[in-house]
Amino acid sequence: MRIVRHLQLDEWLPVIRILGLLLCVVAVMMLVPLFILLKEDDGDARAFLISLGITLGSAVLMLAISRKVELELKPRAMFVLTTLSWVLVSAYSSLPLVFGAPHLEVTDAVFESVSAITTTGSTVMSNIEGLSDGLKLWRGLMQWIGGIGIIVMAIAILPFLKVGGMRLFQTESSDWSDKVLPRAGGVAKAIGLVYVGLTLLAILTYWLGGMDGLDAVVHGMTSLATGGFANYDSSMGVYSDRPHLLWMASFFMLLGALPFVLFIRAWQDRAGVLWCDAQVRGFLRLLGWVIAALTLYRVINGEALFTALTQVTFNVISVVTTTGYASDDYSAWGPFAVVAFFYLTFVGGCSGSTSGGMKIFRLQIGLIMLGNHLRSLIHANGVFSQRYNGRALPDEVVRAVIAFSFFFFITIGGLALALSFIGLDLITAVTGAATAVTNVGPGLGDIIGPAGNFSTLPDSAKWLLCIGMLMGRLEILTVLVLFSPSFWRK
Amino acid sequence: MRIVRHLQLDEWLPVIRILGLLLCVVAVMMLVPLFILLKEDDGDARAFLISLGITLGSAVLMLAISRKVELELKPRAMFVLTTLSWVLVSAYSSLPLVFGAPHLEVTDAVFESVSAITTTGSTVMSNIEGLSDGLKLWRGLMQWIGGIGIIVMAIAILPFLKVGGMRLFQTESSDWSDKVLPRAGGVAKAIGLVYVGLTLLAILTYWLGGMDGLDAVVHGMTSLATGGFANYDSSMGVYSDRPHLLWMASFFMLLGALPFVLFIRAWQDRAGVLWCDAQVRGFLRLLGWVIAALTLYRVINGEALFTALTQVTFNVISVVTTTGYASDDYSAWGPFAVVAFFYLTFVGGCSGSTSGGMKIFRLQIGLIMLGNHLRSLIHANGVFSQRYNGRALPDEVVRAVIAFSFFFFITIGGLALALSFIGLDLITAVTGAATAVTNVGPGLGDIIGPAGNFSTLPDSAKWLLCIGMLMGRLEILTVLVLFSPSFWRK
Ligand SMILES: [K+]
Ligand SMILES: [K+]
Repeated sequence: MRIVRHLQLDEWLPVIRILGLLLCVVAVMMLVPLFILLKEDDGDARAFLISLGITLGSAVLMLAISRKVELELKPRAMFVLTTLSWVLVSAYSSLPLVFGAPHLEVTDAVFESVSAITTTGSTVMSNIEGLSDGLKLWRGLMQWIGGIGIIVMAIAILPFLKVGGMRLFQTESSDWSDKVLPRAGGVAKAIGLVYVGLTLLAILTYWLGGMDGLDAVVHGMTSLATGGFANYDSSMGVYSDRPHLLWMASFFMLLGALPFVLFIRAWQDRAGVLWCDAQVRGFLRLLGWVIAALTLYRVINGEALFTALTQVTFNVISVVTTTGYASDDYSAWGPFAVVAFFYLTFVGGCSGSTSGGMKIFRLQIGLIMLGNHLRSLIHANGVFSQRYNGRALPDEVVRAVIAFSFFFFITIGGLALALSFIGLDLITAVTGAATAVTNVGPGLGDIIGPAGNFSTLPDSAKWLLCIGMLMGRLEILTVLVLFSPSFWRK
Repeated sequence: MRIVRHLQLDEWLPVIRILGLLLCVVAVMMLVPLFILLKEDDGDARAFLISLGITLGSAVLMLAISRKVELELKPRAMFVLTTLSWVLVSAYSSLPLVFGAPHLEVTDAVFESVSAITTTGSTVMSNIEGLSDGLKLWRGLMQWIGGIGIIVMAIAILPFLKVGGMRLFQTESSDWSDKVLPRAGGVAKAIGLVYVGLTLLAILTYWLGGMDGLDAVVHGMTSLATGGFANYDSSMGVYSDRPHLLWMASFFMLLGALPFVLFIRAWQDRAGVLWCDAQVRGFLRLLGWVIAALTLYRVINGEALFTALTQVTFNVISVVTTTGYASDDYSAWGPFAVVAFFYLTFVGGCSGSTSGGMKIFRLQIGLIMLGNHLRSLIHANGVFSQRYNGRALPDEVVRAVIAFSFFFFITIGGLALALSFIGLDLITAVTGAATAVTNVGPGLGDIIGPAGNFSTLPDSAKWLLCIGMLMGRLEILTVLVLFSPSFWRK
């Protein structure tokens, strides 16, 4: 009762309004497959028409409730808005999967749309080749919307909420002290343009590389979003005989995992901004070493050099950027590769990109902390300066990064335990939890490995994995604070 | 060259002297099985005679080199001494296994003795029933020496070296600012008495419970040492039809994982000192919840209540105290139990006990840190006091605990990767690395699970696991600093 009394409607009207606006975006996105399906005279058009109606209806209702409201958000409302926006967009996005030809059960449809919007890319659908063009496009579009959502959230919202050490990337554009929308406008627009531009570039490149039109569009969108949905059950395995396509995809996945603000700066200053950034350098170096080591391992085990290099590069980049395409069953590459890919699942790309996982900057800050600690054991009275990317590293950021890491692994551990209770074996439970929270996509083992599919899991496991994907996407703490009673007290 | 110049012999003579004294202890210990074997007129007597000769010879040589040296140790020498003492004692302890009836290869003998001295309890030996009484006793004695070694190290050495937040337990007895031996004397003697007393109590209890003499002695020693070597290939499984023995063993394993200084204080004050201690309470609560949950899981899966309770209690206590006896193949209890036991491997008992793992106090301090961080996200300007066990918790300790945790998991992760490179599968590599570094004993999977054995692993894997067991026992950082170049500079 005491809690309810404090929940004044005024505080939440702006939240409802922004959610309503987001649903309008979803509705507009639904127009794209609808238009194509109508042109192709496909039965799925009806599914999109119904979904569009429901989404637009809800949006209008929410906007009507919150008419003439100032878009002023307090931190508390921001936490709630951020979490709800992912949940709601996922929920409404699942509608075409229920009403369309595959007629998925609600659990499967929600799993697929949460997996899409969070850009995880785990799928419960099979015979994807047989879907209508509209539904293929919709799967790609969902990931693409999710991708831009993440970047905007990472640049404009999370630093303000001090989640996971993201304050490190606080810029003017993330200073929300008064009003929300006007300030973020400039950067958001520029980022949006870069995102659209790079996606179009990827689509064009894939098309010139020999993909058919729809494949180029969907794969272009899911590459930049580091989403990982493909138009084929064997994912990118269909292109294994056309290695140039795998190299192209590697390149665009890599772009999707770089900090998007740096693209803008690189464009403005025409300088080596990207290579000067500590996070980007660490990311590329790590990829270089891992690809070299695993290629060597493959060659030692009898694979031809070019094939090994292509397959290792593609699949390593796919996992580290948290895209999750697979071009080969890397779980059959030998135990060293299996363990390596298990670890790589956690890494993630750069902050401010579409990728998930721990993120490179957190690993780097962790290493700085550990190095300093080791030095302090040896030189008892030494004082060690902490610097990162050419600037002093505040203790507050280090603490936030550490806390994030713990919460990250505790979430994965708890989720794995819950999955094992449902009956999933150790490897499926642990790698399933990990791949969900890191938003990578494939796990390990016979069931959910790179050659597998999530469809056979029990419904309860699918719902748990949905929670995991959403928590991972929201950098865990954004969700966790909502479950603290003191959060809801004035 | 620059490094060598700084290594003046003076600094290291005290180290050599203390190592020589430790080898004398090993030699004295060898007298016990030798005496029994001579009485039984067993061929293994010769093996112990040779081993004793080599050990005593080395000891005398080392003491001769370091005659008339003041036992004054600088921190640097202390790090080296601590690490070397475990390596050397393990090495010399392996001799009877090479010269005795099983005639183990050097790799196997060293693995077995490192596993014994570090109280890990993983074994490469089979048909343990067929060993001579002397060798059975020797396996128990090695663990027993290791057990007291750990307690002394945890109370008197590690707090001084500031390793892993152990400074929290710094008392007068761990203030080494001037000379080494005299100060620690009092507490060390009292702890030694408690250790001997409790071991005798365990032996007597086991004997009254129906074990034969030698089994009571060996199991008494390996229970208090939370070592886990048993006189049977099926470990404590031989007592599954005599549940009272499993309950007795559960009790003594539990004692072995409690802080030994508290036994002294409890004895002196005759008060509820043990139950007032935050670490002990957290430990018992954790055990209570885990046992309740797993018993319920077993009962739901059709096991009888008393059998379920007995087996769950015994095996959970065995893993959490890092003893590593098995009375049943818990890896066949279903996926939830498998994942739970995997997690429990990392937990460990209380600091200042014979147990390994992360230790309860580190988990508690981690939780305090995480709770404070969550609160700081909600109340941006709040200041939160950190208290543990009724006292203020210094930031320095929190940092050390966090750094330890990271190094702990990085060590396990690195070791697992190396093991996978040798060809061990994911589960064997990861749980093998974990069980070595936590000094628990059994891993998971078909090969090294509770029903398995380490004998079939490749030699290189055995050596890597030896390094893992020693690093775990030395709380990782004690070893890591030795590999830092700046450690060796003046
Ligand atoms: K993904
Ligand atoms: K053990």
